[in-house]
Amino acid sequence: MITKEVIEQFRVTPGKKLKLKDFDTGFTGTDEQKRLAKEKATDILDKNREHLATAQNLLYANDRHALLVIIQAMDAAGKDGTIKHVFSGINPQGCQVYSFKVPSAEELDHTFLWRHMKAVPERGRIGIFNRSYYEDVLIVKVHPELVEKSNLPPGPRDHRFWKDRYDDINAFERHLVRNGTIVLKFFLHVSKEVQKERFMERLDRPDKNWKFSLGDLKERGYWDMYQDAYEDALEATSTEVAPWYVIPADHKWVTRTAVADIIVNTIHDLELAYPKLSPEQLKALAEAKKRLEAE
Amino acid sequence: MITKEVIEQFRVTPGKKLKLKDFDTGFTGTDEQKRLAKEKATDILDKNREHLATAQNLLYANDRHALLVIIQAMDAAGKDGTIKHVFSGINPQGCQVYSFKVPSAEELDHTFLWRHMKAVPERGRIGIFNRSYYEDVLIVKVHPELVEKSNLPPGPRDHRFWKDRYDDINAFERHLVRNGTIVLKFFLHVSKEVQKERFMERLDRPDKNWKFSLGDLKERGYWDMYQDAYEDALEATSTEVAPWYVIPADHKWVTRTAVADIIVNTIHDLELAYPKLSPEQLKALAEAKKRLEAE
Repeated sequence: MITKEVIEQFRVTPGKKLKLKDFDTGFTGTDEQKRLAKEKATDILDKNREHLATAQNLLYANDRHALLVIIQAMDAAGKDGTIKHVFSGINPQGCQVYSFKVPSAEELDHTFLWRHMKAVPERGRIGIFNRSYYEDVLIVKVHPELVEKSNLPPGPRDHRFWKDRYDDINAFERHLVRNGTIVLKFFLHVSKEVQKERFMERLDRPDKNWKFSLGDLKERGYWDMYQDAYEDALEATSTEVAPWYVIPADHKWVTRTAVADIIVNTIHDLELAYPKLSPEQLKALAEAKKRLEAE
Repeated sequence: MITKEVIEQFRVTPGKKLKLKDFDTGFTGTDEQKRLAKEKATDILDKNREHLATAQNLLYANDRHALLVIIQAMDAAGKDGTIKHVFSGINPQGCQVYSFKVPSAEELDHTFLWRHMKAVPERGRIGIFNRSYYEDVLIVKVHPELVEKSNLPPGPRDHRFWKDRYDDINAFERHLVRNGTIVLKFFLHVSKEVQKERFMERLDRPDKNWKFSLGDLKERGYWDMYQDAYEDALEATSTEVAPWYVIPADHKWVTRTAVADIIVNTIHDLELAYPKLSPEQLKALAEAKKRLEAE
């Protein structure tokens, strides 16, 4: 378990200037945890998966809250692997993953939030957004010509334009939170060096070739612009009700443990209990049992 | 045509105290228009329908803006009739009507805006909401026990609760407007006396019997609470970008003419033109024509 104090360090403080350089991509735990060493990571993750399954079960039985998990990152930072390893123990009936790729013509004819609005999880469930509307202030900001694909009314695409998008995102998330959805946002923070290593691995290993695309290499060329876009977006949209976490992503086991821990802790903090039955309801159950036994 | 000055009187000024009593349900036009008399209303509406069809065609060809029309009213104020008479001349390919009735279990498990978010019109189209998320601050406010149907997390359903809902609505509409949707909201303002007349007609005329439900009569008993809820909601959510219009509804021809006029004027103010082709594109068309003629 990563301690609450450490988790707090990953949280982007609302209203404070953000520098990604201040967040260590290679973090491997406190001194105490370093003694645990990497070989114990699998055990920790197994434990976490158990906790998460229990937490999700409670969420489902309680049926008051939904959980929306947003995962954003540069390529090869470990989005897919994190989802796979963190959520594999969960009942799929209570969990939906949406991977948002290039928008369709119908989607471009609506607002940039529309396709995500449709996909938010219902009460009792966990919804995972593998990429999200944040792409509309990240890749779209790095490649502003993409804005024009959506045929918006003319107007400057200036500072104000992006600020309006941040504001709309904040208002949307606030609406979700007010109505019982918990919103957790994770930026998997990988270094440029480790991205290179992982790209090389995809090129060298036949079983990983399929994960490599030349487009990824092209986007790597815009590294600094992406880091700037992430800094602006995280700074503008990390709120008390829907915080961003910058998760160290150079070591996969750290990423996975941290994400799982934060989710488990957040659900735990809701202090959910299995719905308690009234004396009348319990009496009715007892009678039902009698009738079944008498059959 | 109702003049722009008259229309301006129907508009709810943002940030100003609203009293529905100040709006005349029995309005039948300025002195000038009274001379036109009711028998000319059909001609006016025909003209309006033509204008609306042209305006909608422009909207569709231009493909930059969508139009969302929200219609709210007490029972028998003329919602269905207004939609039928105002929009009948329009190409249905460019127009979608959504009638929001009692929410489903799946809808109740999402936020109150969710089912409406999914249904907003895409660029180039007109979307009509026959009732809308405003019901969630109207009927739900008059019957607060309905709030609990949606299994929200516990908390007071106080002034702040309703204010949060107004804020979320305003933020959502602002998001739509920023992304090219025009939002027009009509409250069809009928008097209690005229509602009684129309209910009686539904009871007396066999061809109108199907429109009457005992539930409508029950809601009539809450008339004053509804008027209060409308006043609060209209006052809190009439904004510069998404204004409310209080439309006199004791005379059907006035309601229909006013709604049609406001829509036509609003689209007209966008100063849309059919997309102009470049000299190259025109040349390509000329060549295409030649090839077809040579076949």
